[in-house]
Amino acid sequence: MSDVYEPTERTTVTRLPARGAYDRAVVHQILDEALICHLGFVVNGQPFVIPTIHVRVGETIYVHGSPASRMLRTLEQGVPACVTVTHVDGLVLARSAFHHSMNYRSVVVFGTATVVDDPATKFEILHALTNHLIRGRWEEIRQPSPEELRRTLVLAIPIEEASAKIRVGPPLDEEEDYDLPVWAGVLPLTLSAGEPRPDPRLAPETAVPAYAAKFGGPAPAY
Amino acid sequence: MSDVYEPTERTTVTRLPARGAYDRAVVHQILDEALICHLGFVVNGQPFVIPTIHVRVGETIYVHGSPASRMLRTLEQGVPACVTVTHVDGLVLARSAFHHSMNYRSVVVFGTATVVDDPATKFEILHALTNHLIRGRWEEIRQPSPEELRRTLVLAIPIEEASAKIRVGPPLDEEEDYDLPVWAGVLPLTLSAGEPRPDPRLAPETAVPAYAAKFGGPAPAY
Repeated sequence: MSDVYEPTERTTVTRLPARGAYDRAVVHQILDEALICHLGFVVNGQPFVIPTIHVRVGETIYVHGSPASRMLRTLEQGVPACVTVTHVDGLVLARSAFHHSMNYRSVVVFGTATVVDDPATKFEILHALTNHLIRGRWEEIRQPSPEELRRTLVLAIPIEEASAKIRVGPPLDEEEDYDLPVWAGVLPLTLSAGEPRPDPRLAPETAVPAYAAKFGGPAPAY
Repeated sequence: MSDVYEPTERTTVTRLPARGAYDRAVVHQILDEALICHLGFVVNGQPFVIPTIHVRVGETIYVHGSPASRMLRTLEQGVPACVTVTHVDGLVLARSAFHHSMNYRSVVVFGTATVVDDPATKFEILHALTNHLIRGRWEEIRQPSPEELRRTLVLAIPIEEASAKIRVGPPLDEEEDYDLPVWAGVLPLTLSAGEPRPDPRLAPETAVPAYAAKFGGPAPAY
């Protein structure tokens, strides 16, 4: 398998091409670090964009939900989908309004969804989804019953085409603006975890697991 | 003007309707707190979902970019758009895999984009965009030249239909699972700012402005 996704008409980065990346490892890492994706699909010509949790396993992105959801009922029919993941890493404060920007890492994936029907496979994907969000959780909790599996729709979206866009570093101003007497630089931003809040019905002596006490963000599935 | 957005076929929350909200003030606040949105549009039946910064002014969402971008060239033609904003507020760790969830606030807006041509209006929208990201910044920086304004495409997306989805609070487990010996609760998550990083070319004595030293997140435009 090639180390890069072949740029296509849909994924060729037309704006500031230097920011575009097609490396498989880069695309995977950005997908794997994200807690949620934004999933796009079309119903009667109207675009819908819905936030949902996801997990990547190999070259497939999985999402799940209720069989009643409009999103998943639509995708089940095999319509084209777009999965976009974005990490906001910082505000780029330039000396001019025009050169203000954001440091970010984003990935856009195109693929067509299919339904995962086999219960054993669904079970393994829910395992991956759970441990992607918070590694180690699956092993401690009550795993899905056959009835719960039936009530969960799982969709597979193969990564048919993908590209990443990344901006890092300080602002890039017009040469004549560098002498302006204004602070310029980057304000870093990260999604960070606070103190775990126990369920009011939790037995008071229950210890907070290490994966929740020191949450470092989602983990690759495998 | 009504305090609520009328639910339509597109915005009626079909899954867990108790989580749906149509209050104008709730929708506005979720939009205003977000640094970025995910903008969906359709080209030849294919959905595209692109992250971009936005600002809401009244009942309109504005986005901007280069006239060369695929996204904005498409929207300029007046195709239907979907703007989605999501705040991830926490991981909901239940006693069963099935009841794991996320605390979040999201808004989905439908509208058709039009181009903002008038330079004075574009100037005011860039003002609003900049100060939405970081209030007070616009007043300190070099504002756009007529040439920079020409090189910036601004699009207006009226909020024709909108809905919010919100989940808060602890996990909701099956009654028989509450006795399981596993920690359950919420792991809160927030986007937080780190220490501002000065541009390497900044004069060393330049003070960090208060809005960057104590960034509290984006502000409503007006």
